[in-house]
Amino acid sequence: MSLPQKIALIAGGGTLPHEVISGALQRNLSVYVAAMTGFAKMSDFDSPGGEFGLGEFKRMLKVFKAEKCTHIVMAGIIERPDFKSLKLDLRSLSLLPKVLKAAAKGDDALLSMIVSEFEKEGFYILAPQDICQTPLIQAGVLGAYSPTKKHQADIIKARETALLMGAHDIGQGCVVCNGLVLAVEAQEGTDKMLERVACLPENIRGNAETRLGVLSKRLKPEQEDRVDLPTIGPRTIELAAKAGLAGIVVEAGKAFVLDKEHVRTLADKHKIFVLGYEKN
Amino acid sequence: MSLPQKIALIAGGGTLPHEVISGALQRNLSVYVAAMTGFAKMSDFDSPGGEFGLGEFKRMLKVFKAEKCTHIVMAGIIERPDFKSLKLDLRSLSLLPKVLKAAAKGDDALLSMIVSEFEKEGFYILAPQDICQTPLIQAGVLGAYSPTKKHQADIIKARETALLMGAHDIGQGCVVCNGLVLAVEAQEGTDKMLERVACLPENIRGNAETRLGVLSKRLKPEQEDRVDLPTIGPRTIELAAKAGLAGIVVEAGKAFVLDKEHVRTLADKHKIFVLGYEKN
Repeated sequence: MSLPQKIALIAGGGTLPHEVISGALQRNLSVYVAAMTGFAKMSDFDSPGGEFGLGEFKRMLKVFKAEKCTHIVMAGIIERPDFKSLKLDLRSLSLLPKVLKAAAKGDDALLSMIVSEFEKEGFYILAPQDICQTPLIQAGVLGAYSPTKKHQADIIKARETALLMGAHDIGQGCVVCNGLVLAVEAQEGTDKMLERVACLPENIRGNAETRLGVLSKRLKPEQEDRVDLPTIGPRTIELAAKAGLAGIVVEAGKAFVLDKEHVRTLADKHKIFVLGYEKN
Repeated sequence: MSLPQKIALIAGGGTLPHEVISGALQRNLSVYVAAMTGFAKMSDFDSPGGEFGLGEFKRMLKVFKAEKCTHIVMAGIIERPDFKSLKLDLRSLSLLPKVLKAAAKGDDALLSMIVSEFEKEGFYILAPQDICQTPLIQAGVLGAYSPTKKHQADIIKARETALLMGAHDIGQGCVVCNGLVLAVEAQEGTDKMLERVACLPENIRGNAETRLGVLSKRLKPEQEDRVDLPTIGPRTIELAAKAGLAGIVVEAGKAFVLDKEHVRTLADKHKIFVLGYEKN
């Protein structure tokens, strides 16, 4: 991989783009921020950049080249756009059939397609974790609580179920409690999945007194790990707590923990374990 | 299979137990109703019977034998009990370790275990559909709307995804729209899954004007088909309509349509197809 000189950061919502910028500055890399309209605003950033619509592929290419960016990083939350109402420049319009075809196959296919279009134009695509390791989860537990023997079976089943879901590009997450799959994430996302676990009858889940069950989020086996790594943050912990879960497991080095110190404090407060496991 | 003389109907909630009673009376079979406390009441039935708690296995056996019931049918909605707070008679208590072990493996294992315990006592277990064919879905469409060519890919993917979920005893249902798995059912049930599809952004689902996407419910491949057959009813159609779906697919002869005429009317009103497909 060639060393980056200047990176274009395609920035969606959330704190990850900011962590990438910090990381880049620490490495003396210049950053041009392309804030995605509807998800991020230039006023949130100190770095130079501009705002772009999702359908402005040609304009992005042109500006990134003019800015002498050699590498691109995509970071932050961008939800699937409404392709019908998207304003598209000509280049994007020519890509639309390909985009729609990829979108119908699932999130992976869509992201891989976008990555390959940028690569065709001579850009190198970097992962956020190439620029900034801070938000990656390490092996071991984050915080004061560790899984015990009684959590092992749920951890294994949750990891396996998440793998199965990922292999079929259905989603990254699931919740398993006492051997029973309580919920599986598809397009609604992890937060909504956890909210519904909290609505299940108490007899099949844990509660604040007796924590039971495990959330697993996992990179899909075929997934491009330069975009859309599984992510947890303070809200994940709060919702896991409300759902009565005992813990959260993600693969070490393959998931982001945003606002790590806050996550640690909340996990300890609710007596929830957060485990980065080594792939075996 | 020996011919039933008198059947014990273990009745949960909903209309299915009533359809079973009608079917039994048409066949001149006597019925003793065991209404499950919390799910059904004797005052809802004209037939003789009694009310039983879920933990009164021994009492049920004794009464069914005294009533000279030879066959047992389980019909209607019974949710997973809270094993901790269940009042158990001695016989049930001795079964508890086995029940808990089966329950942790999933719904199938739990139901198979209950069936086998009744069989050990000399009872024959019948399916509701052995007594009453009326609520079973036939091959073909129910109502005025049929799937068109554009629905085929979603129908296939929804059937396959439901099969995958069933094979892992996760759940019976899923929703697929334009190739994308929008939602997968686990412990929350079909209604809640449809409600959340209605909450997804409109750009990835259909609406009342442009119906898109398919709900599939499917018997799990290893599933005991004498209990817990996939079921749809008027509420399923209403919620599918709100979720913007184009149709519902279930396996012909392997799913119940409760209140069939009402379902047909609602499906036609919302321009939704209801398809019973032949297994191939």
